[in-house]
Formats: sequence, C-alpha cells, structure tokens
Amino acid sequence: MPTLKQLGEREVIRRLARLLPSRRDVRAGIGHDVAVVAGGAAFDWLLKSDAVLEGRHFRADTPARWIGHKAVGRVLSDLAAAGGEPCWALVDLVAPARTAVARVEGVYRGLAALARQHGLAIVGGDTTEGPVLELHVFAVGRAPRGTALLRSGARPGDRLYVTGALGGSRAGRHLRFAPRVAEGQWLRAGRWATAAIDLSDGLATDLGHLVEMSRVGAELFADQIPIARTVLQAPGNPRRKGTRRRPGAALAHALCDGEDFELLFAVPARRAASFEAAWLNKFRLAATCIGALTRRTGRIELVDARGRRTPLRGRGFEHFV
Amino acid sequence: MPTLKQLGEREVIRRLARLLPSRRDVRAGIGHDVAVVAGGAAFDWLLKSDAVLEGRHFRADTPARWIGHKAVGRVLSDLAAAGGEPCWALVDLVAPARTAVARVEGVYRGLAALARQHGLAIVGGDTTEGPVLELHVFAVGRAPRGTALLRSGARPGDRLYVTGALGGSRAGRHLRFAPRVAEGQWLRAGRWATAAIDLSDGLATDLGHLVEMSRVGAELFADQIPIARTVLQAPGNPRRKGTRRRPGAALAHALCDGEDFELLFAVPARRAASFEAAWLNKFRLAATCIGALTRRTGRIELVDARGRRTPLRGRGFEHFV
Repeated sequence: MPTLKQLGEREVIRRLARLLPSRRDVRAGIGHDVAVVAGGAAFDWLLKSDAVLEGRHFRADTPARWIGHKAVGRVLSDLAAAGGEPCWALVDLVAPARTAVARVEGVYRGLAALARQHGLAIVGGDTTEGPVLELHVFAVGRAPRGTALLRSGARPGDRLYVTGALGGSRAGRHLRFAPRVAEGQWLRAGRWATAAIDLSDGLATDLGHLVEMSRVGAELFADQIPIARTVLQAPGNPRRKGTRRRPGAALAHALCDGEDFELLFAVPARRAASFEAAWLNKFRLAATCIGALTRRTGRIELVDARGRRTPLRGRGFEHFV
Repeated sequence: MPTLKQLGEREVIRRLARLLPSRRDVRAGIGHDVAVVAGGAAFDWLLKSDAVLEGRHFRADTPARWIGHKAVGRVLSDLAAAGGEPCWALVDLVAPARTAVARVEGVYRGLAALARQHGLAIVGGDTTEGPVLELHVFAVGRAPRGTALLRSGARPGDRLYVTGALGGSRAGRHLRFAPRVAEGQWLRAGRWATAAIDLSDGLATDLGHLVEMSRVGAELFADQIPIARTVLQAPGNPRRKGTRRRPGAALAHALCDGEDFELLFAVPARRAASFEAAWLNKFRLAATCIGALTRRTGRIELVDARGRRTPLRGRGFEHFV
C-alpha cells in the first residue's frame, strides 16, 4: 500500500484525475494551468485554485502582507498564462485559534492589495481552525470564447520565450513577484502565443509540461536564458567578480528553482521578429528567446554556446517527494 | 493583540470582509451561502468554497468515501440553498506525505460519486503536503439571471419551512447526507421561496443569519420542528419509550446541532397552501412549516404548544471558539 511520498505528486494526480467526472462544456481540465469551461456565447471561464501553507510556501516569520500577496499572486500568474482577465475569487483560510488577528488582517491586506490592482473581487470563502496557517485561493477569470492560452498548442519550429529573469526565488522573489497578467492578456489578444505556462515549478519542469501537453520536443539555448541578478551576485556563483568561476551553478538555479512566476510561451517562427518589435513597443519587461520547439517529442536538450547538446534531466519542485 | 479564538469567527469574518475588494458585477458577496456574480445575459454564477479537515469535520477512522462525500456535499448544499445548478468544481488536497494512496483514492471516489450524481464536473485543483488530511472544494453553479435564492429577501409574515428532520448529525448524518439540490432548484424555479439557507451551523444559528440578512424577526413553533429519529431514540431522550421524559433535550439537538444540511426557507403566507400541495406532489421528502417571520428585527422566539414565548439564545457551531 504505497504512500503519497512513495508515488510522487505527478503519479498521484494522474491516478486521481482518472476518477473524476467531467462534462461536455469542459474545454481544458486537469493538466493545464487553469481549467477552461464554456460559459456562454461571449466568454470562456478560467478556473484555478492554489494553496500556500506555512512551513512550505512561507515561514512563520514571513511578513503577513507577502503571504497574502503570494497566495493571490500564484493564481493570478496561472490566469496570466492563459491570457485571462481576472474576475472573482474566494479565499479559504485555515489557522490555529491562537493566531493573532493582526497577522491574519495583514495577510488579507496583502492579498486585497494585489487583487485590487488586477481587478479581482474577493467575494467569499471559508474560515476553519487548523494546525498551521494556510490559504487556498480559488479564482475565476475569463477570456473571449476559444482564445484562452493552454499548455497545448505549440508546434515544432515555434520559438520559446520567457519573461523577466529566472532563478531569483530563493532571494525572495517567490514572495515579491508581479504576476504577468497584462502581458498574458496581450499575448492572447494579439494571438502571438501558440501555448503558454507560468513558471512555478522551475523552467526544466514547466517546459516539460508544455512539451508533453503540446506533444513536441524543445531545445534551450543555455547562454540565452536570462538569469536573475540576485543569482549572479550570490557568493560562489560564476559571473560574480572576485569569486571562482563555476560555470553552470547559476544556470542550474535558473533551470531548476521553482516559483519564478514568469511566463514561458511559444511564438511561431515566422512571427518572431514582429512579436519582438511589438513587445518592445509595449512593455519595459524583457521577453527573451531562449530556445525553440522540435519534433523530438518529449525530449528537451540544452544547447551550449559551442553547439554541444545535453539532454535535460533536471527537475523542478515536486510535492510529496 | 487578540487572537482568532478571542475574537470569534463572526467578528473575524466581519473584520476581514471590510478589507476585500469588490466589483460592480457582484450581486451577493460575503454573508450569503454563495457569492452571486453576473456572468452574462442568461445566467448568474454562484461561487462557493468549503473545507473539511481531519480532527474537525471527520476523524482519522472515518471511511474515506464519506470524507469525499462530505467535502463535495457541503458545497452542493450551499448551491442548493441558492437554487443553483451545479456545474464545475476544483478540489485542493492537503495531506501528509505518509498518507496511503489508497485512502486518498477512496476520498476521491466518494467525492466523484456525489459530484457525478449532481452533474458537477471536477476540472482541477491543487495537491500540497501538509500536517493533516484536508479538502477544499470550490464549486461554480448557475441560476437564471436574477433568480438565485439568498439569505436576504424574506418578509414579515412569510412562513418558515425546513426540509427533512433535524438533529441527526451526531448519529452520522453529518457525513451521510443528501444535499437538497433538486429541491432547491425547484424552490427557485417556481419562485416559491423569498429566502433560503442550508442548515450547516444549526437551526438556531442559521435562522439567525437569515433573519439578520432579511432584516426580520422569527417565531419558531417548538412542537412543529421535525426531529430526527436517531435523536428521539437516543438514550435519555424525551420521546423514547421507557426513558424518563426530559422535555427539550431532543429539541435542543434539533435547534443547536450543526451539519443537518437541510434547507430552511421562507414562503409568502398567501402561497403557503399551494406551496404545500405542490411540494407534496413533487417530493417524498418532508417540508415542514416550523414558524413564521415577524417584524421584530433580529429577535427569534420559541413558541411552545401553550403559546408561551421564549427568546432563543442557543447558538450552533462557530469556529475558533
């Protein structure tokens, strides 16, 4: 009788998903950043839930506002990957009875501030006593019918882009990130992207999801991957002045650390130049071409500056393991 | 610096609700069984989340299927109170890594069976490692625009009805209940009810919510309240043969025990007779008139068979207390 730990999160989800009922109006379900359901003539609805728990996603001494920011930011990041417009959310709070009211109010101020910034109303939820502080945010977004970006839809030859810079989560960006809501909606509205995902489990793992759901392969240009300044400046990291050069250490963070909350998306090669021009015209945030999709289904290769190829086996964060 | 326990659930929710952003398309938010949001020309969307935690809503030895049944049943019961048609749900699972996969699969079989029975698709969710087993279910339902039943809307003079029988939760009905989905939709579609609520915190507390949101008072006919057979037959209870008569003990259970998951609703007095005839024609389940709404805002009185009135101070279940 195996435990959740012995089976691992992916296999647990695969087993549970088989048990669950669906409906004909479900356009995308388990396996995507958001579920997409048909809700009428004009819009599809995007549904997403995500949890943050003390000891796992934040610590007992994490400032209250950033806990709330992260809780809402995580689901906004998923809505962003689908190109969705945030609409309404419910928040389930679990907390020990001894928790100071001021701390919980601080958490709610943090989540309210980010929700307000993105037009997301908090319309309800549940409060329950439990062993540790945790928040579950359930968000509903929308996109014009049939236009939501999914993990599937990318094609061989498409260029792979990533927003911002990667690997900064350990330096605090896992709390203080800006979900790429405007960017995702722009990608969807302009029909620039064929597929998209937000980077929550690490580039290596999340690219694996995109490649699997799109039934393609990928090559990543190692020297093109944008690395967060905090990673480059960390002691012992390669590009830091006065430290011994250890090639690959910073890159490993950028590939494998979770919770970057940037967008990874595919753009058809023939539109890459016009996409880059339009993006530059619209956003100050960088969008960097870091690779391309291939016909070698399920295979991800890292290509270095000299053209040497290494199969990517690195994995990002997985629960229960 | 007060704690959640010192402040109590109602006051905590009141304080948190003040912090949260809303939108113009929110028809009903915090304070109702479900949030109601405007989603298009034809339908309003009903949003509800609810949690079950080991040690609070079920025990370590509760059969897995009933845990899942209860988790989905609770949100279906809230959708039922609004007269909603269940559509889609997300499920957040929190569990220790040592949890047997078979137990989690059992939980999901239970929730899938009840969801399937009511046409509710499970389209996603989240899995996280945590200290105890818990499930958060987020459900979306719908009702024709402007027709969802709320806790508000009842008027003085309306008759109060309750489905089924009350007080059976300690004998296991808190797990093995049937959410009154068909009944709620029928009440909504026939415009029979002016307001409704599902009984999750106990008749006394939940009637208090309805009375507060509708700005009315209520009188309850003590000898009309339907009491579950398991309560009447329990040792030491009043109507059990061979035991000493202790008037009020069974009634106290019916008034104060939580998790009956029956519907409490108000029907205009002039429609009461036709309502009762139509209900009898449609359902085998009982709908019993247990009182009436009054102009004495916020006041709830218990009226016994001799016409004696007692203000009702009993409270049902409240978290953090």
